[in-house]
Amino acid sequence: MKTKIGIMGYGNLGRGVELAVNEAPDMELAAVFTRRDPEKVTILSKDVPVVSADEAPAWKDRIDVLIICGGSATDLPAQTPKYAQMFNVIDSFDTHARIPEHFANVDAAALSAGKIAMISVGWDPGMFSLNRVYANAILPDGSDYTFWGKGISQGHSDAIRRIEGVKNAKQYTIPVEKALESVRSGENPVLTTRDKHTRECFVVAEEGADLERIEREIKEMPNYFSDYDTTVHFISEEELLRDHAGMAHGGFVFRSGRTGENKEHKHVIEYSLKLDSNPEFTTSVLVAYARAAKRMYDEGMRGCKTVLDVPPAYLSEKSGEELRAHLL
Amino acid sequence: MKTKIGIMGYGNLGRGVELAVNEAPDMELAAVFTRRDPEKVTILSKDVPVVSADEAPAWKDRIDVLIICGGSATDLPAQTPKYAQMFNVIDSFDTHARIPEHFANVDAAALSAGKIAMISVGWDPGMFSLNRVYANAILPDGSDYTFWGKGISQGHSDAIRRIEGVKNAKQYTIPVEKALESVRSGENPVLTTRDKHTRECFVVAEEGADLERIEREIKEMPNYFSDYDTTVHFISEEELLRDHAGMAHGGFVFRSGRTGENKEHKHVIEYSLKLDSNPEFTTSVLVAYARAAKRMYDEGMRGCKTVLDVPPAYLSEKSGEELRAHLL
Repeated sequence: MKTKIGIMGYGNLGRGVELAVNEAPDMELAAVFTRRDPEKVTILSKDVPVVSADEAPAWKDRIDVLIICGGSATDLPAQTPKYAQMFNVIDSFDTHARIPEHFANVDAAALSAGKIAMISVGWDPGMFSLNRVYANAILPDGSDYTFWGKGISQGHSDAIRRIEGVKNAKQYTIPVEKALESVRSGENPVLTTRDKHTRECFVVAEEGADLERIEREIKEMPNYFSDYDTTVHFISEEELLRDHAGMAHGGFVFRSGRTGENKEHKHVIEYSLKLDSNPEFTTSVLVAYARAAKRMYDEGMRGCKTVLDVPPAYLSEKSGEELRAHLL
Repeated sequence: MKTKIGIMGYGNLGRGVELAVNEAPDMELAAVFTRRDPEKVTILSKDVPVVSADEAPAWKDRIDVLIICGGSATDLPAQTPKYAQMFNVIDSFDTHARIPEHFANVDAAALSAGKIAMISVGWDPGMFSLNRVYANAILPDGSDYTFWGKGISQGHSDAIRRIEGVKNAKQYTIPVEKALESVRSGENPVLTTRDKHTRECFVVAEEGADLERIEREIKEMPNYFSDYDTTVHFISEEELLRDHAGMAHGGFVFRSGRTGENKEHKHVIEYSLKLDSNPEFTTSVLVAYARAAKRMYDEGMRGCKTVLDVPPAYLSEKSGEELRAHLL
């Protein structure tokens, strides 16, 4: 029997989940829920109903795992605990600082309903977190390094758009090659924020706006830009839409550590991703963890989990025997 | 209470386990078992007894996890099932083709004794296997690539030493840079054995041996060398011991896959290791999994497991809360 997946929210993530579920031989898409008028939402899968989010409770026994495809700022903190009261759920909540709070809310909801919930699934948090935990456990005497990019940061692009006179903007986070090389060589460098990443901004200004002031406001913006070497390019809206609509992203997780009686041996563990589509990769991870969530639920596990709690074999549709014979 | 670790066998691996256990705040070394005369084995830890392997059964209630540090060819197939009848055990069995058979033997022994056993822990099998399984689950439409090196292959070095007229030898497996770059770029190349690795041999010949014949016998040896571009250097024993005694190793696991309605998006996942000491890294992995084995045993799990069955959080001495707050 195939695992029945529901999708809550049909944006870039929802569409990515749909594509990934359609690739999975052991899953089927049961319904797509939307807060918009369902009549106006067209999905790729012809035979799957698009349903108003308000009607989700009626689907509670027809869905094995609901994948919640909202944003981390306001959607998921409300949606994941809410739907964990009716469904096994999974989300990609990525505000690192608020994970403990989100975990507690979702855990309480899922436990009271006897469901399983999995939060913060994707690549960071997600695959990058796994790699940090594995590498820290293996090399307790060492240093962690995480680099992101090259890719567009939604939060930084939004911050630029809030500046007066800015019509539209995209911001790329770019890892500094020299810093990557230094970490990769095992030098174990101490790196400042500025050493690790540069920021490149493509800005569409309103007609007649003061470009010098906009550039200054971007470069001096605390937290977002002031600690980085930032480049600002003013371009036309046409160029922005044509050249900067891609959703490529990626990054690197390193751990550099030492072993030996006199700590004479260096070791470098590196994990990296080069992604043409950030949302499609994120949702590919979500769908693999939906498979695990179903299996853990069937084994009786309840409450909130993260990628750190999931045995790797549970992500695969292959049996333990097959995995041991071919991938171990 | 600290987890009590026993070491079976005190060679490079046994010594590496000792170093890693001494780094772990939640573990202590209880005893080192040896098949040699215990009087003649000196270990680093002053207060830990060195005991004859024959006396191991008497230690059955004084050790939480026994880490078996034998070789995969003949030691582990006998030792791991044997000691799984008395202890929770863990090994680094690395003969990929024989894993299913070893698993079955160890599973039967551990189940009948009510113990947990973990086999094939290290980096390949081990961390590389994990990465293959994660990446396959996330990108079902894709290709796997594993490269090893630069590092010494024990099996290939041994094969050269069996040739008539060879006194000693070391063989390096070296990944081909061009192949790595092609995979890394997402080109999804089809690579032959020869495309992926070269083999470099440092050989000490007996006095008066026919060097031309030795070189030919190496290069034409089926399975080991005939499918590779192989270089042979004849050097003195002194040079071999001075320049080729290192135990550095490493390698790369890639998965290159596609997503999208028309498979228009490429993604590349890369995991790599650069290790100054192959045995010390392997044993660092073993010790992290010994922590997990103890925890899984305490939770009631029995029988044979592999790295694919272990939730990542179990490798860390940190609590779930700490991990979620700092590493997720």
